[in-house]
Amino acid sequence: MSERWAYLNGEFVPESAAGISIADRGLIMGATVTEMTRTFAQQPFRLKAHLARLYRSLRFLQVDPGLTPAELQARTLELLHRNVASGEAGMEYGVIHFVTPGPLAYYADLDPATVRPTVCIHMFPLRWHPYERFFREGVHLVTPSTRHVPPQCLDPKMKYRSRMHFFLADREARLADPHAIALLLDLDGNLTETSGANFLLVRDGAIETPPTRNTLAGVSRDTVFELAGELDIPVRERDLQPHDAVNADEAFLSTTPYCLAPVTRFNGVPIGDGRPGPVLARLLMAWSERVGLDIVAQITGGDVTAADWLGR
Amino acid sequence: MSERWAYLNGEFVPESAAGISIADRGLIMGATVTEMTRTFAQQPFRLKAHLARLYRSLRFLQVDPGLTPAELQARTLELLHRNVASGEAGMEYGVIHFVTPGPLAYYADLDPATVRPTVCIHMFPLRWHPYERFFREGVHLVTPSTRHVPPQCLDPKMKYRSRMHFFLADREARLADPHAIALLLDLDGNLTETSGANFLLVRDGAIETPPTRNTLAGVSRDTVFELAGELDIPVRERDLQPHDAVNADEAFLSTTPYCLAPVTRFNGVPIGDGRPGPVLARLLMAWSERVGLDIVAQITGGDVTAADWLGR
Amino acid sequence: MSERWAYLNGEFVPESAAGISIADRGLIMGATVTEMTRTFAQQPFRLKAHLARLYRSLRFLQVDPGLTPAELQARTLELLHRNVASGEAGMEYGVIHFVTPGPLAYYADLDPATVRPTVCIHMFPLRWHPYERFFREGVHLVTPSTRHVPPQCLDPKMKYRSRMHFFLADREARLADPHAIALLLDLDGNLTETSGANFLLVRDGAIETPPTRNTLAGVSRDTVFELAGELDIPVRERDLQPHDAVNADEAFLSTTPYCLAPVTRFNGVPIGDGRPGPVLARLLMAWSERVGLDIVAQITGGDVTAADWLGR
Amino acid sequence: MSERWAYLNGEFVPESAAGISIADRGLIMGATVTEMTRTFAQQPFRLKAHLARLYRSLRFLQVDPGLTPAELQARTLELLHRNVASGEAGMEYGVIHFVTPGPLAYYADLDPATVRPTVCIHMFPLRWHPYERFFREGVHLVTPSTRHVPPQCLDPKMKYRSRMHFFLADREARLADPHAIALLLDLDGNLTETSGANFLLVRDGAIETPPTRNTLAGVSRDTVFELAGELDIPVRERDLQPHDAVNADEAFLSTTPYCLAPVTRFNGVPIGDGRPGPVLARLLMAWSERVGLDIVAQITGGDVTAADWLGR
Amino acid sequence: MSERWAYLNGEFVPESAAGISIADRGLIMGATVTEMTRTFAQQPFRLKAHLARLYRSLRFLQVDPGLTPAELQARTLELLHRNVASGEAGMEYGVIHFVTPGPLAYYADLDPATVRPTVCIHMFPLRWHPYERFFREGVHLVTPSTRHVPPQCLDPKMKYRSRMHFFLADREARLADPHAIALLLDLDGNLTETSGANFLLVRDGAIETPPTRNTLAGVSRDTVFELAGELDIPVRERDLQPHDAVNADEAFLSTTPYCLAPVTRFNGVPIGDGRPGPVLARLLMAWSERVGLDIVAQITGGDVTAADWLGR
Amino acid sequence: MSERWAYLNGEFVPESAAGISIADRGLIMGATVTEMTRTFAQQPFRLKAHLARLYRSLRFLQVDPGLTPAELQARTLELLHRNVASGEAGMEYGVIHFVTPGPLAYYADLDPATVRPTVCIHMFPLRWHPYERFFREGVHLVTPSTRHVPPQCLDPKMKYRSRMHFFLADREARLADPHAIALLLDLDGNLTETSGANFLLVRDGAIETPPTRNTLAGVSRDTVFELAGELDIPVRERDLQPHDAVNADEAFLSTTPYCLAPVTRFNGVPIGDGRPGPVLARLLMAWSERVGLDIVAQITGGDVTAADWLGR
Repeated sequence: MSERWAYLNGEFVPESAAGISIADRGLIMGATVTEMTRTFAQQPFRLKAHLARLYRSLRFLQVDPGLTPAELQARTLELLHRNVASGEAGMEYGVIHFVTPGPLAYYADLDPATVRPTVCIHMFPLRWHPYERFFREGVHLVTPSTRHVPPQCLDPKMKYRSRMHFFLADREARLADPHAIALLLDLDGNLTETSGANFLLVRDGAIETPPTRNTLAGVSRDTVFELAGELDIPVRERDLQPHDAVNADEAFLSTTPYCLAPVTRFNGVPIGDGRPGPVLARLLMAWSERVGLDIVAQITGGDVTAADWLGR
Repeated sequence: MSERWAYLNGEFVPESAAGISIADRGLIMGATVTEMTRTFAQQPFRLKAHLARLYRSLRFLQVDPGLTPAELQARTLELLHRNVASGEAGMEYGVIHFVTPGPLAYYADLDPATVRPTVCIHMFPLRWHPYERFFREGVHLVTPSTRHVPPQCLDPKMKYRSRMHFFLADREARLADPHAIALLLDLDGNLTETSGANFLLVRDGAIETPPTRNTLAGVSRDTVFELAGELDIPVRERDLQPHDAVNADEAFLSTTPYCLAPVTRFNGVPIGDGRPGPVLARLLMAWSERVGLDIVAQITGGDVTAADWLGR
Repeated sequence: MSERWAYLNGEFVPESAAGISIADRGLIMGATVTEMTRTFAQQPFRLKAHLARLYRSLRFLQVDPGLTPAELQARTLELLHRNVASGEAGMEYGVIHFVTPGPLAYYADLDPATVRPTVCIHMFPLRWHPYERFFREGVHLVTPSTRHVPPQCLDPKMKYRSRMHFFLADREARLADPHAIALLLDLDGNLTETSGANFLLVRDGAIETPPTRNTLAGVSRDTVFELAGELDIPVRERDLQPHDAVNADEAFLSTTPYCLAPVTRFNGVPIGDGRPGPVLARLLMAWSERVGLDIVAQITGGDVTAADWLGR
Repeated sequence: MSERWAYLNGEFVPESAAGISIADRGLIMGATVTEMTRTFAQQPFRLKAHLARLYRSLRFLQVDPGLTPAELQARTLELLHRNVASGEAGMEYGVIHFVTPGPLAYYADLDPATVRPTVCIHMFPLRWHPYERFFREGVHLVTPSTRHVPPQCLDPKMKYRSRMHFFLADREARLADPHAIALLLDLDGNLTETSGANFLLVRDGAIETPPTRNTLAGVSRDTVFELAGELDIPVRERDLQPHDAVNADEAFLSTTPYCLAPVTRFNGVPIGDGRPGPVLARLLMAWSERVGLDIVAQITGGDVTAADWLGR
Repeated sequence: MSERWAYLNGEFVPESAAGISIADRGLIMGATVTEMTRTFAQQPFRLKAHLARLYRSLRFLQVDPGLTPAELQARTLELLHRNVASGEAGMEYGVIHFVTPGPLAYYADLDPATVRPTVCIHMFPLRWHPYERFFREGVHLVTPSTRHVPPQCLDPKMKYRSRMHFFLADREARLADPHAIALLLDLDGNLTETSGANFLLVRDGAIETPPTRNTLAGVSRDTVFELAGELDIPVRERDLQPHDAVNADEAFLSTTPYCLAPVTRFNGVPIGDGRPGPVLARLLMAWSERVGLDIVAQITGGDVTAADWLGR
Repeated sequence: MSERWAYLNGEFVPESAAGISIADRGLIMGATVTEMTRTFAQQPFRLKAHLARLYRSLRFLQVDPGLTPAELQARTLELLHRNVASGEAGMEYGVIHFVTPGPLAYYADLDPATVRPTVCIHMFPLRWHPYERFFREGVHLVTPSTRHVPPQCLDPKMKYRSRMHFFLADREARLADPHAIALLLDLDGNLTETSGANFLLVRDGAIETPPTRNTLAGVSRDTVFELAGELDIPVRERDLQPHDAVNADEAFLSTTPYCLAPVTRFNGVPIGDGRPGPVLARLLMAWSERVGLDIVAQITGGDVTAADWLGR
């Protein structure tokens, strides 16, 4: 198989040539906004929604990528086409977009007037092994002492990359359990999000999830809202605390690479009876139907089925 | 002149070959700790103090760079030697160290067990033109609405690179004045720091500066404390607010590349009589003496002299 | 034209005789609650709603003005009648009510038992020139570093006059743009209000505006809610952040003197395409219809028409 | 006796003619900075310090009064001279300075370019009866639920008049005891100040008082610091909580009109043995000596003597 | 009459023998969760809902009481049966459940492995005299300076017993009025709850009450929601401030022992016209109907009737 | 050996008879203040300081125990004498004082006028096995997500028993390490204390510890201050964050039962080289000298010696 291509600043280049300058403000300041889109059957899922959010982030950051959303979409599809064509058959991909303000003129010894934003699209194959465990045993969430950065510093509605606090939070969570994921609290002690996913719970037949004041308005979370609408499952955005999580009937994560995964433990306490529940099952089945493949089977190789959780 | 060298993960490489992987967590999460050391007459200034702080940051981040401080210092000196030897005569340098946890295994399609931290040393020539203005007109500081990230999210005692909030803050400041620099407030409205410097003021003959709960314990700030001690100028760490800045007798910034620069306006209001003051002058003269060259002359080409501010 | 009358503490007096004592607690402590009502075709608009809010403020302040709402309304109408009769034909007016606890006995060398609240009604002609620009270019809002006073200190549901923070905030905003108006954030970084208006935005066809925990429950804002109801435009009260404003489809201010004005820039970034939008147009047209005159034409002299914004 | 004079915007006028315009931003926005200086034997006490603080407030507010401090001092002395000459023999005075940005052009129907700040000096006789009780029974302080406005909204280092929260706080305190005075807590629950005085306590022989982050840097408080220095009583600025007040050995208020008064109860609990203490006595005796008259005797008519508290 | 029984750690014992060990963590750490259920006509009201909440609290606390909810219910009914049988005829009871983690091994000189939770059920006769006043004069609520413990420390959704802050708050309230009850504010100044009841108000025909982020999800509050649904009275959970309480049309408390009681004063200010209102009357009448006895008559001996408040 | 005595409400009773009423507000509200004093060679250590703090707590709580400090001290000594006389030879004791407001009249069916505070003194033998590990391996501190209750709710200067948050915090810490102890952060992310000890660290030869705004003013902590004074080790109270702990040269806990214990890990990171350090050794040696026995030897049985840590 040949090397994958990436798109960097107007050109398609082999991925190994897509190194980022040590003077780039993405690296120096974490001043990067990003998106991850995944494929189902090699087709990008909700690419338009991801790009729309990227441009909202860019507008807030006041960085002009020099491409319209339509142009960036076209480049994305071309890159995808190239890499799918030359890649392993049947492989699914994560497609990353990121934009930075470009190099810091001073570090790079450049005339500031010549600085252009860094615009990159790259892809990586979605491997399922890190997620299998989520579907067999469920996710264990742990609330670390490190708090999420508040909106008046960095608004979580932007998908930004200044997220060392997520790195620190996951270190704390893994101290409690090497497989645990951190669910960060905000400064008031409300539940927010993990480093890569939104958190949702089920109580009395309704889905509840933190508002976007404190969390990313995830595209997968939006998909849950849509599917829930179709399934007549009410959805409420509200401030939630650990007490809500521990006493939920079900809980799950939503995110691009694995769509949805059951949360079965919270700070060491089982949620519900400690197994995935029927609302999650219905959502995953509806999502699978929408994308024309069994999401859980794809990840687990077929021996776990969301339908098994229905009967509970 | 030949290309500069950089040090990256155990090897000396031409700087243009030192690109950072698009899968590196420094880029993806801003999970980078860093230092900048400068040279005076091509000799590094307080390199040991910078490396000690880097290792404190690394210990907090729980990342092991795989090198002892002494080893990293040796690599640094070798790199400096190479670049000075082949560089422009008389050039001063900024020497950057940065360490990240290395690539994200998932994005890079790697076995997590093989992931190693990214350790980089690189250098750039210190150009004076961006700083000349500071010494001729003084710095204008503006407090933006964006607040500094609080210590319970990211401790400012680490010199970290998840600093998109600094980027946003400077955008706000430049809306008020294209030459202004943002001085961020903390969540309680106390003065903290700029994106690249500590803030200090002079009141009734004493230097006052925010505590390290909310600001970096700058090496240049430490140098000010030492020089002030020698000059019998009292120094106090305390919470300061904009009212203190506006009513200070003098104010200045401390930072690695230009050491100290006068702050002459704050949110549009002149500080004191709007010109640099004698305490700053005495500090700059003492610092110049310590390093054996006239810092202000080096930056301004010689037609500005700190001694001129003494008589005020 | 003869001098206008004012009402002060039970009497109608020429406005020039309505000076407030230097010992009044309105002046000494900012302990004043107030309202502004405007006329359309010389008839007061929603006077009852303004007086009801004034009496809610007074109840909270525990000051008894010595008049029932009906009595105060009668005095108001009489004052209006007098001034319209003797004023310039066709002039519209702002009608101000304010009440203070009266003089500080100690400063005024009075027996505390004799102190009575200060109750004043006065009027001023509504001049349109300061607002024309709002309808031609749109308002530029800037978020200052000064935060709005939190409800546990002074509840914004009261229309109070201890608002030096608004003065400071506008100073900051004007540093960024001499025509900018400050939109203050609360202590959590949520959008609140300007010194004289509520802020509303349009997203996906619905109007969103901050809740009254952090903002005045403006009478003009209530009018927007009513008109939106008639026009089938959904309205939501929710916490909003700068990211919402920058990415809104439209934004506008609501306030007594000019009813509604388009916000076209936010911290230097254009909102939508930088021009007034159709939801605002529909609201202004409905409001104009309700009051029987073209609000925009009245302010701009007729060469700007809200209907022009509809086609966008 | 003839009417007192006041100084208003460049002229000496009879006090009754010194009414403030209903359009003045001092009245409309509470945008006023102020000072009160008192006389001892008809001589102003620390007038220079008061004026220096006034000019610090004005610099922060960015209002230029159009007079130098020396000019304002000269006007003050002249006013004092006039009023003392024509006033009751032996009377002491409170001298008030206040400055506002002047009228709101819009309300006053003025060209904004013609607006000038309002600068006023006025005086009132110091009557002792409201304070006698403080020296006979001591002050009862009560902490209300209303919190002090935080520095990021209005910095207490300015002596500003947007202080309706003080009015509300005193209402709450008087619900607990008609003679009680409110001591406001800040948002973190630290003790701050009353509406008119600084709070200080004595513990183990040292004076402790809140820092100026949360309280006015009172001129009387500065006098206490000086006197304490002469008397070898240590002084510490630190965050204090109600638990500190309740368990203090002594507590007292410092303020311009009555200098110092004992606090003998706090939220209904006696402080110490519920009587004034020896540190306060020593301070009052030293202060009396400095100004050449017995402060306590002046207020109480002579039958209370600070020296009586010494023996405790 | 014979002594009442209690249930303690698996056994029915005479109440006087149900002392709690001085080493119990309920006593040492306030680490107790609890419920109070009352009887109507000697039948427990909503016992299941109370036990469900108790088990949610226990799950959060991670204490296993060693009994299923059904088992605990059976023990409760048996205890009730025993005590009703031997008690005064017609007496109503408060039934208390509380669970602690059991003794602290170290204080009790025990092997930690042998420690078992303390599980207790006990009862006391409901006496009406302390509540009569509530129905004759209404409750006076006062907001103390002491704030409610925030959810990130102790989640109010748990009915926990670490509530010394309630004790302190009531002390403050009684300083203002010996009959007053404290209504605590949260750290942001929102209304929360009293030490024993939820707070609800009526505005424009709808019931409003604080959300469960800051208050207990009271079982009586839930009953109000149900009854309001049946009576077509809208109910809204939202953040409320003192200004809302003072300007409410009605206000009341909901709690287990007396169900609902009118709040007629708030910080000394009458609510509405200072008398109980029709919404409360309708709720009490509906509740009475549901339980088959006149709640108000039971408490007041029959001379106060909720129906009298209807006509207002 | 005979049963130990306890003192309860005026009488000496066998400990097993000292049960606390299920209606006691200590149990119902956590409304308890307490002290623990330990013996060295069966003599109480700093009993006076403990009782003084108890009476400060009581004054804040406004509960009068009905005994003077001297009387309570006499009862304590008598109890100690009784129990030492009849106890195991050589046994050391923890002596507990606690006071509550007494039973809740309503629960206990009592006339409120007859309610008296509950005053209890009891003792337990100090067993060393739980602490041996601290001296062999050092303490591992973990920062939980649960925050310490802020002073405006419950002031940590009181040694109060409403501390369920400590229980929850320790649960979280033990999830990370079954031997870990929780070190709680305050709402701003500063280090505070463990459920039973103060935290101190050593940096550059000086001891640093959080201020008493956020922590108990521990009697053992005071002893450290005294010993440090004698040993010429500087002590500073300041806000500390996890970054300080991780990068300290040494860290330790101070508390009554084991005096001082080394902290060798913090959130999984070794402090210093992961072993106890020389400053702690010197303090323990000085303390041992003061009390006339080797504290470390007493706890460990003699095979660990603080002096061994000196040479590091």
